[in-house]
Amino acid sequence: MRISKLVGERLKDNANGVNVKSHNFLLRAGYLKQVCNGIFSMLTPAQLVNLKIQKIIREEMNKVSGQEVLFPVVMPREMWDKSGRYSSIGAEMVRFKDRNDHDMLLGMTHEEAAVHLCQNTVKSYDQLPFMIYQIQTKFRDEARPRAGLIRVREFTMKDAYSFHYDKEELKSYYQKVYDSYNRIFKRIGMKNFIAVKSDTGMMGGDVAHEFMLLTDIGEDSIVICPKCGYKANMEVAVANEEKPVHKDEKLEEIFTGSAKTIEEVCSYLKINASQTVKAVCYAMVGDDKNTAVVFIRGDKEVNEAKLKRILGKDVAVKDLSETGFVKGNIGCLDLNIPNTIVLFDNSLAGMKGMVTGSNKEGYHTKGVNFERDLKDVKFLDISKVKEGDKCPICGAPVEIKRGIEIGNIFQLGTKYTKAMDMTIAMPDGTSINPLMACYGIGVGRALASVAEESCDDKGLIWPMSIAPWQIYLCPLRLDDETVAKKAEELEESLSEKFEVLYDDRKVSAGVKLTDSELMGIPLRVLISPRSLANDEAEITIRKSGEKIMVKLEDLTQTLEKIIKEEMEAL
Amino acid sequence: MRISKLVGERLKDNANGVNVKSHNFLLRAGYLKQVCNGIFSMLTPAQLVNLKIQKIIREEMNKVSGQEVLFPVVMPREMWDKSGRYSSIGAEMVRFKDRNDHDMLLGMTHEEAAVHLCQNTVKSYDQLPFMIYQIQTKFRDEARPRAGLIRVREFTMKDAYSFHYDKEELKSYYQKVYDSYNRIFKRIGMKNFIAVKSDTGMMGGDVAHEFMLLTDIGEDSIVICPKCGYKANMEVAVANEEKPVHKDEKLEEIFTGSAKTIEEVCSYLKINASQTVKAVCYAMVGDDKNTAVVFIRGDKEVNEAKLKRILGKDVAVKDLSETGFVKGNIGCLDLNIPNTIVLFDNSLAGMKGMVTGSNKEGYHTKGVNFERDLKDVKFLDISKVKEGDKCPICGAPVEIKRGIEIGNIFQLGTKYTKAMDMTIAMPDGTSINPLMACYGIGVGRALASVAEESCDDKGLIWPMSIAPWQIYLCPLRLDDETVAKKAEELEESLSEKFEVLYDDRKVSAGVKLTDSELMGIPLRVLISPRSLANDEAEITIRKSGEKIMVKLEDLTQTLEKIIKEEMEAL
Repeated sequence: MRISKLVGERLKDNANGVNVKSHNFLLRAGYLKQVCNGIFSMLTPAQLVNLKIQKIIREEMNKVSGQEVLFPVVMPREMWDKSGRYSSIGAEMVRFKDRNDHDMLLGMTHEEAAVHLCQNTVKSYDQLPFMIYQIQTKFRDEARPRAGLIRVREFTMKDAYSFHYDKEELKSYYQKVYDSYNRIFKRIGMKNFIAVKSDTGMMGGDVAHEFMLLTDIGEDSIVICPKCGYKANMEVAVANEEKPVHKDEKLEEIFTGSAKTIEEVCSYLKINASQTVKAVCYAMVGDDKNTAVVFIRGDKEVNEAKLKRILGKDVAVKDLSETGFVKGNIGCLDLNIPNTIVLFDNSLAGMKGMVTGSNKEGYHTKGVNFERDLKDVKFLDISKVKEGDKCPICGAPVEIKRGIEIGNIFQLGTKYTKAMDMTIAMPDGTSINPLMACYGIGVGRALASVAEESCDDKGLIWPMSIAPWQIYLCPLRLDDETVAKKAEELEESLSEKFEVLYDDRKVSAGVKLTDSELMGIPLRVLISPRSLANDEAEITIRKSGEKIMVKLEDLTQTLEKIIKEEMEAL
Repeated sequence: MRISKLVGERLKDNANGVNVKSHNFLLRAGYLKQVCNGIFSMLTPAQLVNLKIQKIIREEMNKVSGQEVLFPVVMPREMWDKSGRYSSIGAEMVRFKDRNDHDMLLGMTHEEAAVHLCQNTVKSYDQLPFMIYQIQTKFRDEARPRAGLIRVREFTMKDAYSFHYDKEELKSYYQKVYDSYNRIFKRIGMKNFIAVKSDTGMMGGDVAHEFMLLTDIGEDSIVICPKCGYKANMEVAVANEEKPVHKDEKLEEIFTGSAKTIEEVCSYLKINASQTVKAVCYAMVGDDKNTAVVFIRGDKEVNEAKLKRILGKDVAVKDLSETGFVKGNIGCLDLNIPNTIVLFDNSLAGMKGMVTGSNKEGYHTKGVNFERDLKDVKFLDISKVKEGDKCPICGAPVEIKRGIEIGNIFQLGTKYTKAMDMTIAMPDGTSINPLMACYGIGVGRALASVAEESCDDKGLIWPMSIAPWQIYLCPLRLDDETVAKKAEELEESLSEKFEVLYDDRKVSAGVKLTDSELMGIPLRVLISPRSLANDEAEITIRKSGEKIMVKLEDLTQTLEKIIKEEMEAL
């Protein structure tokens, strides 16, 4: 490929209003062009990276006996009515009517399609287990696309679905794909990634893992125990802590005036937030009548993902006007408001000497002893883990890191096969709904995540395995006939063995060197009148900056050696 | 791949209500599953064929310096308002509102996206020419999906867009892609295909070609001159004919009573249809006020594609109730109906002694002499070519064949770059809108077209270049330990060099042989207790039915030789 004809600009300045490195460099280096919010066109360098990532994914999926198929993007409503997801999924799923006024949708994921494909096609237990996968376009109407390709509305995804006749067998295959995912991320050159337990969300099922690239720009919080290796997404991380001990006192109502927030009450009473009981009220989606009230210790925060799972409904903090609640004075003793679901977080279990609202304007009650005053309460895990809390497995202090979800895997169980009535015949003549698991990787997000992890202040640094080109052929002084001739010879000879981007422009050395670094091509081969005078070329390794002068006759062999080493290191 | 785990059934019976061979066999052999009207899931065998076709397309596109990119499927309305196609394309384009109430659409084609990608990115003439292409999912809400993958609503398409600074250069590049398309179809094993001149339809522009597979199930009619090689889609084929000569007479109004249709009038007057003037009335889409009336010789038919181009509007035969027209008696003399656009077909030019309606109930007028009675009329080419008509180039009688459109290429000119205001700087300092051409191939339709052409009464016959597997390893009597052991050995050794589908089922020889033929795998390697007794295997070539007994030690080499020969023959 010659850079003079390569569609795409390389820009000197950072992209306006972009504060994520990968997003900035992908725009600046001519990889992406935004079409509208969360929708991009990919230029050739990006598409070449995409294709290489897809090839690695295919190889690894085929290694675990995956069968590549292709489901439709557009599906009829009926299929999704069966699973219940036509109505349970919100505005992120695009719905439209076709020319015959039939309800259609754009598939966000393909569990329904997978079951449709296999039902009545696979009939007997001895055809199981199997896994089918596809690599295809998905559209999810994200409310807040961000960070370039990290969170978009349209993307290419590999999604896979496995079918099993018993739980043990499902678990053992799930572990194979878990290992396969580790290989995929390693092979595409990702370094600092981990797998964590995760929420099953709209997919259903009970066990799920996310693969996370650890990075400060991540949207997810991950709880990690450095001692025993416990790792979980904040959404599911089990809270555990050394509880503060307060002096046991008798119940007493006290005037707190206009002190409403935990901060105000603490400051007024000169106590610590850990001595207060916080009430957080939630509206539940699809339930206009009831209010959910979570009582939690004042120094803790509600984990809404956990609350959602407990309630089985989406939640949003409730506006308390026109309800019976006394805002800022809600208390856990004698709260008599109709249509209220009251929940208590584990952080309150066994606590003594606590301050709670008195359910009347201007008053709080101190001396609450949960064992004494709220005997029948059931405490649940509804709080967010904090840095330094105790690991739920080994008790060591946990760390909290941020991460980008780069892949996810779910044990779905029979949710979809039951809903869609897919059965297989077992050896004893009975019929069962097979168990399923599903496995996703976003190709564009993988690209952006590698870019995010693999760059410096000059630009991108592609791992050898997914670089759009392996070599940036960079002749300086193309006005010099010797250089021009040698450059064309090298373009031809190197292209026989390698993927070469040839910078055939008559521009300054500065522009060429800057562009080669910005684009992140792993190896730069530079020739100039001076190097050719010694029959030499200069190889620069983008990753390390290391420069190697080689005789032209040894160039191919040296490049082969470096590329082999870099590939083997992945 | 082991067939016992391959998802998909092979069916003994023809698919219900399916009368196209490729559709039937693709369903029966476990390649496809229908999701709903015009929407299919592709099982692994089909997806493997798809991927091979895509690989060949990529190689050929890259040979003509194509740069692979990826445009979004979902695009915002604004882009398509600029080209005018948001409103000019009908119900076949899916439109929906996103969660922010923004008008979005599913791209049927990507001229707008291509210009968006290149504008402000490519700025100077010396970056031209270039071509960008993608391989991606498209959705077109076809009114009448049919014939399996031949006409669907969702499909994978390779679409390419080239940009040029002058017409000569565009033409020369267009010819390169024309040649490239010939190579692609040849390489995927298509035999009886041709390129014909075609209509530019919704794409705009002036020159276009379609690649057609000649087959009786085709929806398109193609006019072919066996003498000079003229080839054109019926939609654009120029009509030319030896005109019938009738006796010149004076004008005379005659009673024809209830005779209304050409047939009735001819029978009543005992004349030939070629002596009558037929009136066909059309409503125009987007123009409720006017009626278009085409006068054409009674033995000819209106070519609505030509009429559309003349009027610049979509047309539909008009219901004449509540208009001023006397149905069945409409005539070309003294037709005084307001809001009427009157057109005359070439077939009437110079005709004498013709019969036309008298524009009053029960009467026709005979003796019409067009030169004498309709002096100022302009005759246009609005008729369909018929078998035996004269070639517009050399005058020899033409043939009419049916075909499936397997690819199309268009010289678009500046339609999109002008509408979207993309300019490039020329050497003299001026700015121009670059010229464009576009090039499409449907991957699934290519698959189905090859299947349609390459099959017999037993099933599919894949060309070696795109077969899902090259070899069907078919051991008979797997209950025999020697056979079972040798089969597994062969599975392993053959899979190192070839793509092997291993029939590991303990089913009858009949089932295995039938399935191998139905699925269309090019080579079958059969072992049995008998063949192994002689250290032999039997190779069957699906295409010819030829059987070759080979010593096991020569098996790999023989297979390599056959595969090489079959690939070279493409």
